[in-house]
Amino acid sequence: SKSNTPAQAPPVVHYHLNNLTTSRTPIDNQETVLILTPLVKFYQEYWDNLLKLNYPHELISLGYIIPKTKEGNAAYAALQAQVTKTQSGPKNKRFASVTILRQDTESPLQSQSEAERHKMENQKVRRAAMAKARNSLLFTTMGPMTSWVLWMDADIVETPPTLIQDLAAYDVPIIAPNVFQRFYNTDTKSQDIRPYDYNNWIDSPTAKEMGAKMGKDDILLEGYAEMATYRSLMAKMYDASADPTAKVQLDGVGGATLLVKAEVHRDGAMFPAFPFYHLIETEGFAKMAARLNWKSYGLPNYLVYHDNE
Amino acid sequence: SKSNTPAQAPPVVHYHLNNLTTSRTPIDNQETVLILTPLVKFYQEYWDNLLKLNYPHELISLGYIIPKTKEGNAAYAALQAQVTKTQSGPKNKRFASVTILRQDTESPLQSQSEAERHKMENQKVRRAAMAKARNSLLFTTMGPMTSWVLWMDADIVETPPTLIQDLAAYDVPIIAPNVFQRFYNTDTKSQDIRPYDYNNWIDSPTAKEMGAKMGKDDILLEGYAEMATYRSLMAKMYDASADPTAKVQLDGVGGATLLVKAEVHRDGAMFPAFPFYHLIETEGFAKMAARLNWKSYGLPNYLVYHDNE
Ligand SMILES: Nc1nc2c(ncn2[C@@H]2O[C@H](COP(=O)(O)OP(=O)(O)O)[C@@H](O)[C@H]2O)c(=O)[nH]1
Ligand SMILES: Nc1nc2c(ncn2[C@@H]2O[C@H](COP(=O)(O)OP(=O)(O)O)[C@@H](O)[C@H]2O)c(=O)[nH]1
Ligand SMILES: [Mn+2]
Ligand SMILES: [Mn+2]
Repeated sequence: SKSNTPAQAPPVVHYHLNNLTTSRTPIDNQETVLILTPLVKFYQEYWDNLLKLNYPHELISLGYIIPKTKEGNAAYAALQAQVTKTQSGPKNKRFASVTILRQDTESPLQSQSEAERHKMENQKVRRAAMAKARNSLLFTTMGPMTSWVLWMDADIVETPPTLIQDLAAYDVPIIAPNVFQRFYNTDTKSQDIRPYDYNNWIDSPTAKEMGAKMGKDDILLEGYAEMATYRSLMAKMYDASADPTAKVQLDGVGGATLLVKAEVHRDGAMFPAFPFYHLIETEGFAKMAARLNWKSYGLPNYLVYHDNE
Repeated sequence: SKSNTPAQAPPVVHYHLNNLTTSRTPIDNQETVLILTPLVKFYQEYWDNLLKLNYPHELISLGYIIPKTKEGNAAYAALQAQVTKTQSGPKNKRFASVTILRQDTESPLQSQSEAERHKMENQKVRRAAMAKARNSLLFTTMGPMTSWVLWMDADIVETPPTLIQDLAAYDVPIIAPNVFQRFYNTDTKSQDIRPYDYNNWIDSPTAKEMGAKMGKDDILLEGYAEMATYRSLMAKMYDASADPTAKVQLDGVGGATLLVKAEVHRDGAMFPAFPFYHLIETEGFAKMAARLNWKSYGLPNYLVYHDNE
């Protein structure tokens, strides 16, 4: 249904949060996963990849938040078409539920080219808006039965089909694979891969000092030469010849692909839209989770792929 | 149903957050209210008072979180009995839905006498636990149709039946009535009232200085002689002869009775379980909301009553 009428709720529902598990063996325990995607542009490859995830789809719910812009309207239409097709297709491919929210605030930046959105002076407003979108989506869709939240950006076009099982097997509060990008290498004249997401990092003394000297509303950003933080970037740690299951502890995380135990969010860990220890959005989330005693980890040698414009 | 099986969800639900209103005239606009109560002891007067609220019950959903302790089990049984009675009673008294969560963590303090729970050295752990309970409840029960969240403690035993309409009429992001307590005054030998909740306050230069000199994990508390903050307490501003509709802007709020526009929470404002600007739980919530540009207000001359042990 498309209307805003509330679903008919049963008069009383009792939930025992301590019966909810988040385990190494989520399928055996029938653990539900909520996949959340803030969406401004629809990629068919993203949807096709989602369909290939071999975690039981009946345990997966999907949630989207889409801005009320021309671009958002197009993404909405494209998403709707695919959702309708999937949800009326083979039963074993259907997801448990799909919730689509239209954002009530305007996108602060109209142009969304990779160059424009990565400009340093645009980052604070842009990431504050992204933080609010993520929070709206999270607060509105997480239910009493959610065991895991998988954050997955709309431009993540390729992951192993066992993504959920692989990440859950580590049984840690927060875990991020390494986000890479495929590209055509003009030097070697062949298809190649390169790091994409610089938000997964281990903190450095330099970054801490920079933070200590900043104004309270200033933020630290990663991946900008004019603000060298000397943090250890997971993007740089990839080693094809090393143990593919290697795990490192992180202080900052990205949200492009991120598995979070629902109890981390339930404790209050969200995406700060304001500078929190000079961090914002997903990086601020890792810090807030740390303040709540939940640790973040990353898998340097486990790759997922971001679209290449 | 008592089981943890997920409710059968429709395949796709679309929600337009910008069609959701939070207005001065919430009944005309059919705005839904989610009343959230962390509960460790059940008071019949609380439930009777809830039933007397004359906001249309079909627009009200209730949410509870109850610890897994002996005391919590007793509260759970008492609540269940009343819920069953109400939800099978006259249609116009029934609430839209009731969600009861059992907490997955232990209460850090077993004794819950007023004297014990108000001891200064117990406050930080106790309020951190309360913050997590509030967040679990909020993140788990707020849905796409929620317009308002009314926080109401289980020991609030008396409010005007027009509470929701009265508070909503101010059309502000966050609003708190003044929480008083009835008692027998042995001096005047008659029933009297006195302030109860000291968490609704306007900040002071002294408190700010104290905060600036504290360690990063220390917290400011209100209502303790050994930590005089010189904040202006709403509890002290009550004036029976003054304008009953008077409104003041606040920097800290209590959660005993508090009306919040759902969009404030959706932006990410939650109850920090860690020191946030040296504030925690509901007081930290007001500060976090302020960081998200949402203002808090209080009504010094609009009273609700806390139980008197
Ligand atoms: N709801 C919403 N989603 C957005 C907005 N801007 C970007 N997104 C989505 O948020 C995710 C991250 O944004 P993106 O521009 O890819 O970030 P980057 O790859 O880190 O530069 C993607 O899934 C986008 O489709 C917005 O204003 N509102
Ligand atoms: N879920 C949960 N609720 C609690 C716990 N401790 C207190 N409460 C409830 O939280 C609210 C505030 O607690 P209360 O002890 O009345 O606080 P005070 O009046 O500020 O001292 C009341 O509704 C209590 O029933 C707890 O450990 N877990
Ligand atoms: Mn992207
Ligand atoms: Mn109380």
